[in-house]
Amino acid sequence: MNLNTVIFIMGVSGCGKSTIGQRLSQHLKIPFFDGDDYHPKSNIEKMSQGMPLNDEDRYDWLVSLNDLAKNQLQQNSCIIVCSALKQSYRDILSAQIRNQVKWVHLAGSFNQILERINKREQHFMSSNLLQSQFDTLEFPEHALEINISLKPEEIVDKIIKELKMKSEFGLFGLGVMGKSLSRNLAQKGFKISIFNREEKGSEEDVAITFKDAYKELEQAQAFSNIEAFVNSLQTPRRIMLMVNAGKVTDLVIEDLIPFLSDGDILIDGGNSNYVETKERYDYLKSKKIHFIGVGVSGGEEGALKGPSIMPGGNKETYHLIKPYLESIAAKDANGLPCCTYIGEEGSGHFVKMVHNGIEYVEMQLLAEVYTILKIMGHNPDEIAAILESWKAKADSYLLGITIAILRKKEGDYWLVDKIVDKAGNKGTGNWTTIATAQLGTPSTLIASALFARYTSFYKEERLQASDHFNIKPTPLELELQDVLKAYQFSRIMNHYQGLKLISEAGKTYKWHLNLSEIARIWTNGCIIKSDFMLELVSVLKEDDNILTHPTIINQVRSLKPSINKVVSQCVLNELAIPCLSESVNFLNGYATANSSANIIQAQRDYFGAHTYQRTDDASGRFHHSNW
Amino acid sequence: MNLNTVIFIMGVSGCGKSTIGQRLSQHLKIPFFDGDDYHPKSNIEKMSQGMPLNDEDRYDWLVSLNDLAKNQLQQNSCIIVCSALKQSYRDILSAQIRNQVKWVHLAGSFNQILERINKREQHFMSSNLLQSQFDTLEFPEHALEINISLKPEEIVDKIIKELKMKSEFGLFGLGVMGKSLSRNLAQKGFKISIFNREEKGSEEDVAITFKDAYKELEQAQAFSNIEAFVNSLQTPRRIMLMVNAGKVTDLVIEDLIPFLSDGDILIDGGNSNYVETKERYDYLKSKKIHFIGVGVSGGEEGALKGPSIMPGGNKETYHLIKPYLESIAAKDANGLPCCTYIGEEGSGHFVKMVHNGIEYVEMQLLAEVYTILKIMGHNPDEIAAILESWKAKADSYLLGITIAILRKKEGDYWLVDKIVDKAGNKGTGNWTTIATAQLGTPSTLIASALFARYTSFYKEERLQASDHFNIKPTPLELELQDVLKAYQFSRIMNHYQGLKLISEAGKTYKWHLNLSEIARIWTNGCIIKSDFMLELVSVLKEDDNILTHPTIINQVRSLKPSINKVVSQCVLNELAIPCLSESVNFLNGYATANSSANIIQAQRDYFGAHTYQRTDDASGRFHHSNW
Repeated sequence: MNLNTVIFIMGVSGCGKSTIGQRLSQHLKIPFFDGDDYHPKSNIEKMSQGMPLNDEDRYDWLVSLNDLAKNQLQQNSCIIVCSALKQSYRDILSAQIRNQVKWVHLAGSFNQILERINKREQHFMSSNLLQSQFDTLEFPEHALEINISLKPEEIVDKIIKELKMKSEFGLFGLGVMGKSLSRNLAQKGFKISIFNREEKGSEEDVAITFKDAYKELEQAQAFSNIEAFVNSLQTPRRIMLMVNAGKVTDLVIEDLIPFLSDGDILIDGGNSNYVETKERYDYLKSKKIHFIGVGVSGGEEGALKGPSIMPGGNKETYHLIKPYLESIAAKDANGLPCCTYIGEEGSGHFVKMVHNGIEYVEMQLLAEVYTILKIMGHNPDEIAAILESWKAKADSYLLGITIAILRKKEGDYWLVDKIVDKAGNKGTGNWTTIATAQLGTPSTLIASALFARYTSFYKEERLQASDHFNIKPTPLELELQDVLKAYQFSRIMNHYQGLKLISEAGKTYKWHLNLSEIARIWTNGCIIKSDFMLELVSVLKEDDNILTHPTIINQVRSLKPSINKVVSQCVLNELAIPCLSESVNFLNGYATANSSANIIQAQRDYFGAHTYQRTDDASGRFHHSNW
Repeated sequence: MNLNTVIFIMGVSGCGKSTIGQRLSQHLKIPFFDGDDYHPKSNIEKMSQGMPLNDEDRYDWLVSLNDLAKNQLQQNSCIIVCSALKQSYRDILSAQIRNQVKWVHLAGSFNQILERINKREQHFMSSNLLQSQFDTLEFPEHALEINISLKPEEIVDKIIKELKMKSEFGLFGLGVMGKSLSRNLAQKGFKISIFNREEKGSEEDVAITFKDAYKELEQAQAFSNIEAFVNSLQTPRRIMLMVNAGKVTDLVIEDLIPFLSDGDILIDGGNSNYVETKERYDYLKSKKIHFIGVGVSGGEEGALKGPSIMPGGNKETYHLIKPYLESIAAKDANGLPCCTYIGEEGSGHFVKMVHNGIEYVEMQLLAEVYTILKIMGHNPDEIAAILESWKAKADSYLLGITIAILRKKEGDYWLVDKIVDKAGNKGTGNWTTIATAQLGTPSTLIASALFARYTSFYKEERLQASDHFNIKPTPLELELQDVLKAYQFSRIMNHYQGLKLISEAGKTYKWHLNLSEIARIWTNGCIIKSDFMLELVSVLKEDDNILTHPTIINQVRSLKPSINKVVSQCVLNELAIPCLSESVNFLNGYATANSSANIIQAQRDYFGAHTYQRTDDASGRFHHSNW
């Protein structure tokens, strides 16, 4: 599958445009249109009287050819021949479809053309107009130029070869994710170029070795030279960067810039910080390069079989890459792609960041559930069986893989018992916590999950503290149903907080986000896909705040007694359950009409004269007391 | 009290330096030294033979005068007379003490001087050397120049007037804190200049009105013109900025720069972000201006009576402002100033930021204690009485003001009941949370306290949620002793986390911080001063990690059962106690030898191939499973 394209064949009258166009049409099996057939009667009369057309004569005609091209593009590709001598004519012809237009210029000398015309009969152009055509001709900059001295079949061959040689989409960086996305694109029939740098000893022949390993990459072009990679792409070039976020991304962009042309598109598919995405967008705009920041979730497997894709940036630019992204994205329950335009600036990367924040919490909650079930005396297989039974009420991708993880054995031992309890992090949980602090939004669970990983990293200190404080959780007496309900309760709080953070960012940055659409593209392909996410798609159609929706309110009310029991019991038995605990404290605080923040306001006014508002002053004015 | 100063009186031989120097010495009651008395014998012989000295002759002599000056400065100010005709001589004389040297140049014409010399007898210089002196003289740029045609008493008067006219310290910005610090400096006897901008309608005559309102400011000079303010200061100028952190600070610095000279010192006493302090330091260094970032805690009252002061930046520069900061700082139990050099770069502002983070938690814990005691059925007066009884075990400034707040009545009503429960924040809690996320340190309590304020701000949503979820905490059955112990437990965790964050920052940024000293300057003057802080000063002398100290370990172990009880009971009764709850979860996690982070590592490896370490592979190598 290619993007639809209009091939405009241009050149002075008599250069052989129609002949070539018709032959090309037969070869490519796409419609052919002769521009001259669309001249108004008045133009034809003028020309047959040997009078040259002026620009005014041509205007309506060019617009009608542009309309023709646009209509054809809706269905398929096509060929249109038209002399198109001036750049201003070509601008009209390609208006609004510039990125889907290819120019072929049939070029020859005055004498070559004159000879041709004299051989022809019944053509309505007199040969004395030829000189004026040459005088008018402005050579096109970006056309494929072919000399008419070649035989027609050679010319057609050359055009086909040239158009087919160039790839439609480039993939820069062949790490785990870059490889999976490349194969995904190739499997969808896209002609792609792939690139990986060459580093002696560590990264040698990566691109070519990778291409050779998979049949679907047969048509792909593999490179380790940046210039060749860029030149192998059709313009405007579409290059997706799958490299490390941060400094590396900037370095790669700098490496690419010298070889790019105006209007080329860079797509950053890494986990970049949304603030940096905005900065890169602005920087590249100054260089006339488009930039789209795209969040991609799904891990190695998702990227191959269909990830969830969150693109942010300029909407028009997005439309130039939409067919590619939507084709490779996962499909939701209705068969729609799990890819939707998120909004301006770094909104795609912001939403991906919060996705990862929600993911941190979902993972931590499962770890806490495991802790509880373990203390209740169950082994990994038994815990897996319990979680399996939860699928009916709380299925999710992460629940599924946790079950598989718990069942994995090495000989007589469960693998999970051999894994060191120090949890790493790649920065997105950290960024989400920073964003939530900056935006004034209490994403308490994401912070808790992040800090739980940080605490896990203090392994040495923890071993020491374990001796000093002698905290040994004692067996718990809990109903399994209560543990499931506590887990469900915390997941609701997690999704509320994550979506709230996105909603607040949308307001602050004026991104006009559609939360229901965001939930929809998270129903498949990504790490946090779940039955609950599916439920949220319709909930969010009614209200951005899920805690005001009757269905969710009822769920929360029925789950609350269980989370109260589980958390209080764990605290009494000295079991660390930071996220479960934070979730119940959050709702208790959130649903408190009159909180103790009055004490804090009084303290602030006491020592810092920060003032406070009064319940008996509806004006909201600020007061200060002489305490 | 002034900083010690050397007044060098210079000029060609015969200009009257010794006469003026001796008179000035009597007036100022500081020692007088005649440079000529320090000439080596060889020089004196040369001069009495009418031979001019060359630079080699002078070198040792000038160095010995510089030594003399340096020695004197250890004890007091002094006057040294010396012809010092060339800039290179003056450079030697003022080496290493440039900022404590004042130059007075007694200037006259050749004929004026010749007449004087001819009147004198027994002077070892012959008058034919005079012309060579005039030829040698390089006029000093920064000296106070006085014509010798004035009478000696007039000259002395002029010198005294000029030296006294200039202030030693400037205070820029007369908000709540700026005013208090100004009065504090003036009360300590410093001659200061104060500045506030003039804004029609909002800030008119602020500086002069303020000066007139306080007797201690009689000697102060008040300005609303920046140039006049800067010119009123002795060089190197010491200007403390007490303006809003952020953009305003940068604008003020830009306003000041045109009027500053090389070596002047700007002191930022606002709550600036430590990263920006580093940036400003670098920027001003390029302009040859010194910059010190100073954290000041104590609120309005502390700033007046003695705040806790946390200066960071270049150590040598700090010594130029140390006498001022130490004089106005609070004093600890041993009479030492609660001001100590923290470290390089933005370390002063970093430590102040964490101070405020700890403060957020201490305030939130008191608010949670109030919530618990209120649900137990006590009115504000009763709660105040309970807290009063806690002073013996857990006294602190914040406990004290909370008691006062609870007792404050308006007629028959407690004021605290009239205060709207929406807690504001000025950014430092937010920054601390960001720093903790960035540095990989789990300051869970600071994040919780920040988020509790954020949640309090959702008043509308909270009222709605209160209806929907019908969470109505039921009366609690708790022993007051348990509530006190839970409070003490959480305060220990709070101080551990805050100090840990400082310690980690110190390692990351190579600041070489002394935690015990930091705790010491927090024992008085600041908002988080407490009996516990006093205890920590000696604990921290032994170890940066307070949770490894036997005293603290014993306290934690004896308090733990109470926090377990209080938190589990509050959760069961649906009371929001985020910080108390987080503190117990933190220790439970921190003291867990084998946590559930293995599950998270397995999940990360499953979907993202992030790898994990194995308990049975001591090499620490990373493994990946094909799950």
